[in-house]
Amino acid sequence: VVVVDVLRATTTMVYALAAGATMIVPCREVDDARQRARNFPGALLGGEREGLPIDGFDLGNSPAEYQADKIAGRPIVLTTTNGTRAIDSCHMARRVLFAALVNRSAVCRQLEREPRVGIICAGTNGQVTSEDVLLAGAIVEGFSLSDADELRCNDQAWLARAAWRSLSLDPPKLPALIAALRDSTGGRNLVRLGMEADIELAALCDRFAVVPALDIREGVIRLQ
Amino acid sequence: VVVVDVLRATTTMVYALAAGATMIVPCREVDDARQRARNFPGALLGGEREGLPIDGFDLGNSPAEYQADKIAGRPIVLTTTNGTRAIDSCHMARRVLFAALVNRSAVCRQLEREPRVGIICAGTNGQVTSEDVLLAGAIVEGFSLSDADELRCNDQAWLARAAWRSLSLDPPKLPALIAALRDSTGGRNLVRLGMEADIELAALCDRFAVVPALDIREGVIRLQ
Repeated sequence: VVVVDVLRATTTMVYALAAGATMIVPCREVDDARQRARNFPGALLGGEREGLPIDGFDLGNSPAEYQADKIAGRPIVLTTTNGTRAIDSCHMARRVLFAALVNRSAVCRQLEREPRVGIICAGTNGQVTSEDVLLAGAIVEGFSLSDADELRCNDQAWLARAAWRSLSLDPPKLPALIAALRDSTGGRNLVRLGMEADIELAALCDRFAVVPALDIREGVIRLQ
Repeated sequence: VVVVDVLRATTTMVYALAAGATMIVPCREVDDARQRARNFPGALLGGEREGLPIDGFDLGNSPAEYQADKIAGRPIVLTTTNGTRAIDSCHMARRVLFAALVNRSAVCRQLEREPRVGIICAGTNGQVTSEDVLLAGAIVEGFSLSDADELRCNDQAWLARAAWRSLSLDPPKLPALIAALRDSTGGRNLVRLGMEADIELAALCDRFAVVPALDIREGVIRLQ
């Protein structure tokens, strides 16, 4: 199963782990995050509620904040509104990876030999959002390129790929992708909050070659 | 609200009313259809369960069956698995229209002055299906052409339009559209049942300029 929350949880996870955080500890609730942080020496608290930083936390949910000088060598205890919650719907999965546009090709390579893949779009408050469906389509397209004869997908995956293809190129030109992300529910929220710069960081296709994966036994996320 | 069930309920409704049926009486259940037919003199019973004709009914759910010589001047009492049921989700709407590819432009013209439009995709057994989402996207695209400055759509409408645009032209070339419909859940079902010809009838964009509309008081569908 691949978890997708482009704006911003999975994007931030990729930036954080690529910058040297030792792990992400995903937590559903703010209190739960504060509690679990005590078990991880040197841990930083990160996340958001309604897009904004949480009182008393070290970090928000903006990828720009997750710089090596601040976070390298430390665990991040993270709670976000939709992204960390999407993980709860993966309890049947044998393997759980985390995808963003910034690591899409690396994720596709990891999936090449999997016989069956589900893509979980975090969405916003239970609603379908276009930024997540676009990345889901990009992942389906990544499959199609490597294994076109064998690919079978359901209608939702077919539609997601069609939406991605409507952006014309693979990967799309950066301005087209940024425009599509700005038009999405998540994008409009970020513009409203003055966090537009995060959209540009999220749109940098394949900036990283790392893949966050859930350690199912421990409930923490580390690089694959 | 616009109800969409391309394969095949709304397509069949358009063919039936264009061929001179006086009205469609949508019924949720088979027994309910048999019962209501008694109140409509000369009525024909039509519909399907699992895509197949219903025992003792006059007509199945194939648009090809709804020919003028058989149905002109008569009411059709219709029950289908997903299409007639989608109508139940429209009980809050002030106005309910029925759209198919075969009458898409006529529907778009009717919607031009509406301040707010919802599109209900029937899907299959509660699942999103690509044939319905493609038509939803075609309707959104129809709006965009006539009223580009004013259009605001939610992420699902945006994604539907993107999927439609991935077919390259508006309307797409017939072979591309038929291929997309064959790939859909509804299309695969029809191929399996040997009813492929219905896909081609459903793909004839703008063959008709008629718009079925629900008479909310009487619960029957007539031409607008």
